[in-house]
Amino acid sequence: MKAVRVTGYHQKLELTELDKPEVTGPHDVVVKIGGAGVCRTDLHILEGQWAEKSQVQLPYTIGHENAGWVDAVGSAVTNVAVGDKVILHPLITCGLCRACRFGDDVHCENSAFPGIDTNGGYAEYLKTSARSCVKIDDALEPADVAALADAGLTAYHAVAKAARRLHPGDRLVMIGSGGLGHIGIQVAKALTPAELIVIDRNPDALKLAESIGADRGVLADGSHVEQVLELTGGHGAEVVVDFVGENGSTKEGLAMTRRAGDYSVVGYGENVDVPTIDLVSTEVNVIGNLVGSYNDLVELMALAAAGRVTLHTQKYALEDFQGAVDDLDNGRVRGRAILIP
Amino acid sequence: MKAVRVTGYHQKLELTELDKPEVTGPHDVVVKIGGAGVCRTDLHILEGQWAEKSQVQLPYTIGHENAGWVDAVGSAVTNVAVGDKVILHPLITCGLCRACRFGDDVHCENSAFPGIDTNGGYAEYLKTSARSCVKIDDALEPADVAALADAGLTAYHAVAKAARRLHPGDRLVMIGSGGLGHIGIQVAKALTPAELIVIDRNPDALKLAESIGADRGVLADGSHVEQVLELTGGHGAEVVVDFVGENGSTKEGLAMTRRAGDYSVVGYGENVDVPTIDLVSTEVNVIGNLVGSYNDLVELMALAAAGRVTLHTQKYALEDFQGAVDDLDNGRVRGRAILIP
Amino acid sequence: MKAVRVTGYHQKLELTELDKPEVTGPHDVVVKIGGAGVCRTDLHILEGQWAEKSQVQLPYTIGHENAGWVDAVGSAVTNVAVGDKVILHPLITCGLCRACRFGDDVHCENSAFPGIDTNGGYAEYLKTSARSCVKIDDALEPADVAALADAGLTAYHAVAKAARRLHPGDRLVMIGSGGLGHIGIQVAKALTPAELIVIDRNPDALKLAESIGADRGVLADGSHVEQVLELTGGHGAEVVVDFVGENGSTKEGLAMTRRAGDYSVVGYGENVDVPTIDLVSTEVNVIGNLVGSYNDLVELMALAAAGRVTLHTQKYALEDFQGAVDDLDNGRVRGRAILIP
Amino acid sequence: MKAVRVTGYHQKLELTELDKPEVTGPHDVVVKIGGAGVCRTDLHILEGQWAEKSQVQLPYTIGHENAGWVDAVGSAVTNVAVGDKVILHPLITCGLCRACRFGDDVHCENSAFPGIDTNGGYAEYLKTSARSCVKIDDALEPADVAALADAGLTAYHAVAKAARRLHPGDRLVMIGSGGLGHIGIQVAKALTPAELIVIDRNPDALKLAESIGADRGVLADGSHVEQVLELTGGHGAEVVVDFVGENGSTKEGLAMTRRAGDYSVVGYGENVDVPTIDLVSTEVNVIGNLVGSYNDLVELMALAAAGRVTLHTQKYALEDFQGAVDDLDNGRVRGRAILIP
Repeated sequence: MKAVRVTGYHQKLELTELDKPEVTGPHDVVVKIGGAGVCRTDLHILEGQWAEKSQVQLPYTIGHENAGWVDAVGSAVTNVAVGDKVILHPLITCGLCRACRFGDDVHCENSAFPGIDTNGGYAEYLKTSARSCVKIDDALEPADVAALADAGLTAYHAVAKAARRLHPGDRLVMIGSGGLGHIGIQVAKALTPAELIVIDRNPDALKLAESIGADRGVLADGSHVEQVLELTGGHGAEVVVDFVGENGSTKEGLAMTRRAGDYSVVGYGENVDVPTIDLVSTEVNVIGNLVGSYNDLVELMALAAAGRVTLHTQKYALEDFQGAVDDLDNGRVRGRAILIP
Repeated sequence: MKAVRVTGYHQKLELTELDKPEVTGPHDVVVKIGGAGVCRTDLHILEGQWAEKSQVQLPYTIGHENAGWVDAVGSAVTNVAVGDKVILHPLITCGLCRACRFGDDVHCENSAFPGIDTNGGYAEYLKTSARSCVKIDDALEPADVAALADAGLTAYHAVAKAARRLHPGDRLVMIGSGGLGHIGIQVAKALTPAELIVIDRNPDALKLAESIGADRGVLADGSHVEQVLELTGGHGAEVVVDFVGENGSTKEGLAMTRRAGDYSVVGYGENVDVPTIDLVSTEVNVIGNLVGSYNDLVELMALAAAGRVTLHTQKYALEDFQGAVDDLDNGRVRGRAILIP
Repeated sequence: MKAVRVTGYHQKLELTELDKPEVTGPHDVVVKIGGAGVCRTDLHILEGQWAEKSQVQLPYTIGHENAGWVDAVGSAVTNVAVGDKVILHPLITCGLCRACRFGDDVHCENSAFPGIDTNGGYAEYLKTSARSCVKIDDALEPADVAALADAGLTAYHAVAKAARRLHPGDRLVMIGSGGLGHIGIQVAKALTPAELIVIDRNPDALKLAESIGADRGVLADGSHVEQVLELTGGHGAEVVVDFVGENGSTKEGLAMTRRAGDYSVVGYGENVDVPTIDLVSTEVNVIGNLVGSYNDLVELMALAAAGRVTLHTQKYALEDFQGAVDDLDNGRVRGRAILIP
Repeated sequence: MKAVRVTGYHQKLELTELDKPEVTGPHDVVVKIGGAGVCRTDLHILEGQWAEKSQVQLPYTIGHENAGWVDAVGSAVTNVAVGDKVILHPLITCGLCRACRFGDDVHCENSAFPGIDTNGGYAEYLKTSARSCVKIDDALEPADVAALADAGLTAYHAVAKAARRLHPGDRLVMIGSGGLGHIGIQVAKALTPAELIVIDRNPDALKLAESIGADRGVLADGSHVEQVLELTGGHGAEVVVDFVGENGSTKEGLAMTRRAGDYSVVGYGENVDVPTIDLVSTEVNVIGNLVGSYNDLVELMALAAAGRVTLHTQKYALEDFQGAVDDLDNGRVRGRAILIP
């Protein structure tokens, strides 16, 4: 089969011919890839930023946002069958550690991460586990939802956590209306009646935000913290979800959080640097967010099947991987780039 | 009546004779003070550290940890009657704002704080509100519980929040086994079966900690983070409650927190300064803690009545306020100093 | 002022002239009535069904769903001012008991209930407490929202409780699409993405249900339990909210509830009669529901202000109270009958 | 190996020689039995009460409360190793359905139940799944804890659920201080500071209850409902856990439940039969309880390892199964009967 591989850092990806993966273990599932998202993390991998963390052996196949059709299953697989349309949770988890047993499988003590530390989805086939397969609705196509597997799932997870504490009349602020924010807005509208205020530096991003459900767009022009305070009666919002995490967004995010509220971090880059006296006197929480769980992905797919979360995609043939990577690197992708084998 | 007042910053407190406060509003309650805790915050007030924040007019009566007997009540008071033994929640709250209506009265939008921004309890009588009065069990004496009104209530609030997410087999780490930690340990033993690990620099404080319920004392000798990791299978604790908040405790606290765990800040001094990437990749939360609510104080008094939380006190006559303040300032108080009118 | 009073059971209501109520206590609020809902409970009061329970002294003014404008306030009222548009929580609560302090004010130990056990809102003015006044948005009119004060609030409370445990992909079944169900449907669409299945015996009610958001209407024709099981993969729904509570709806409701699900009772009439072995082997819960809290009413008004909950009303002049009562009794009211002084 | 089997209903169990079970699947675990609890359910099985429900093929090996040592493991087993001491969760679950993925594995859609519908633990060896094995502390012996696997786990689950909503000062009532109640009391003391009131008809059972932690024993002599109301200020308890479920306990349990409280059913026999108006006007919930989850069992074993839950056992050689069964049937077992191969 065809596969696109990392053969060395600071080098271009290479298309090669590999043996199709085979089921060897009882929970193995081989998936025929229908679409693989091209993510900024893939660029970082090529730059070697993940080399030490992942300890992956080169060469390997890249691609961690995958969806397709079940091609073969191991003997113990009961949740999917050959032919099923599936999206793949980004982690392969053990199902036996305490975190897995609680449904917090992203904190699995024995996980693998296809596309990061083992072979991923820029290929015709991918081997994963039954525990990673989420069946999707007949109405959905793998290539259309693949990018929800990681980026979308992260946004879903953070916003769903926020929604659990929001009531009608409360305010939810989102910092950043890019890829994740775009999904976050749609998820927020589906999960909570709280007023949604979205902040971005780009007026076009705000227009898009308002068109998909944001109640208010606020331009990040230096007056945005003040504007949000004004929109919230001087109190700030019950929850602020920060999809940026750099260029001062953390200080601003905390400044826009109401007493006893949550400042929820998704994007990363800078440090959260806050006096303990401020945390204590306002009783504000700083909430960390990783990608969502398997169950989160099932729920996100339910929203997608109901037409409540959609994603703009730009499709490329697998062989045109370099075009997709270059377009992403040069800001020429609207929505998400998807490779189609 | 006698009252001890702040007459100027960087000056000694003064004992004066004042008119006894009178009930004027329908929810007013006048309390005959049975005991008033002498707190480190009182020293800070005298140093002027609270002048700007509180905007209090001098002279005024200091003392924010108060208990006693109801002496007079306004026309709308239904929860206490003359003669009742009471401990006073440190805040006077409105009961009408949304926070009050949810039971989060410490976030009341219209509160007053006797001893900080209005007359407090270093006196024979104090005027407060029906909303601040918690009846205490016959078996308890005001002078014995007064110091639970603020310091104890803060410890209760943070530990009760932690207990809500702890299961048998989990670990709770407390940094600091001083005044608050001492209460925190007793509250933890009453509220959660989680294993309790207490860290302090003082071997005597650790001995005391173990004698009142800590499962493990760890000396803060530079190897304590490593020791805690070893005691927790390399994972860290599900919750770390930090009663110190300075001298590096925040970094250490976060380093001892398990993935998806809570690092909970009570003490203050330094900044929490943590890379967003760490919050995101571990999904750790930083939890702020203010003093507890009225209902928290009711619950703490239930524990005190059951003999599950006790406090060592060193009593002084009200007239000997200077002795109490000096002893506190010079580290000569074991437990809490209490003024008795 | 004009007021419509119960002067005897099994007699008609009488319009009389009374003194306008005056502020006497510090938390009193006198409200100029803008609209008072005519409720089936009012018919029951006239039939004497509430006589023993309420112990009310005749004559008294009926009407427990009220909204209007603040006309006068007591000295301690800080949350509303003269001229404010308000809807009134049906209970006058003490604010001092433990239930009130937790925000569960409907379980207040010292409450009064205007229109049931003290003078209500079929009048030009009503005296209530600051604790019962919820300011409404400029865009809302008292006469349009009055009926949300009790019937709507009950539906909101039950559905909001259900929404807290529902995820995308889950199912919520509502039995009964009448007055409460009508509000319940709108609330459900605002609060949860769960699929909403509504059951009613009336095909027109189902059409209306679908037009305001129900995903599926199921005719209660005897096959409805089976139909719901089929729609839920044979499992039943995660939550069933029963607005009927009679004519077999409780057995049917339980039969449509999924393992580990909630059967939530709002309507009443018959007994819930279920073998303990069934509760134990399926781990199903039976959830009781009273009217909502003050905070619930604030949230419902936020939904109303956002246009997400609306109510069809049929308005009558106060003097025409008999027409309204007769129309209700004879099934001639579409939506809710409202008296306007 | 030796095994005790059901060969026909209304017949005695038979000891036979069978092949030792072997690992065939990747998640299989063969356990050398250290102790198997003899439970009243085993008597009911012999009476044929479970024949239709379980659809089990005769003959088969009985015994559903099992603990021992891991003897052999399948290729995919990572959580236990040969030689580990383990207690076995009563169900073999799939790990792939939504319930399993949430940690609610007792609601698994594809489970088996050794001792009920497949071979159980009255034998030298038992085959189960890795998902059912909980490692126990070195200090615990399989024969001492085996009976916690089902009866104890049920009590733990119900009480842990109750503890989540109880605060200091609240009351927890338990009806029945027999086998489950005995564990329930110890669990309650470990998990919640709420005052514990235990009701039983047997004065000796109450003495035992008080000796292991009950704050108050109340004799079920006909005045017990009144007594509990008196002990709770006329309000009833925040939670009532009913381990009996027959002979009128359900009506009594509801009568002792406070407004907005939970009546929690564990024992079964009669019907819960309650007017909907009562559920609605008091907002009381009826909570169903099945056996606990895998994670519950891990937590219960943490309590056992800490010496906070102990069980009195009466041990019999496996060959003496008939003696154990007869003793149980004739009320001659104190605590739990355990078969030791």
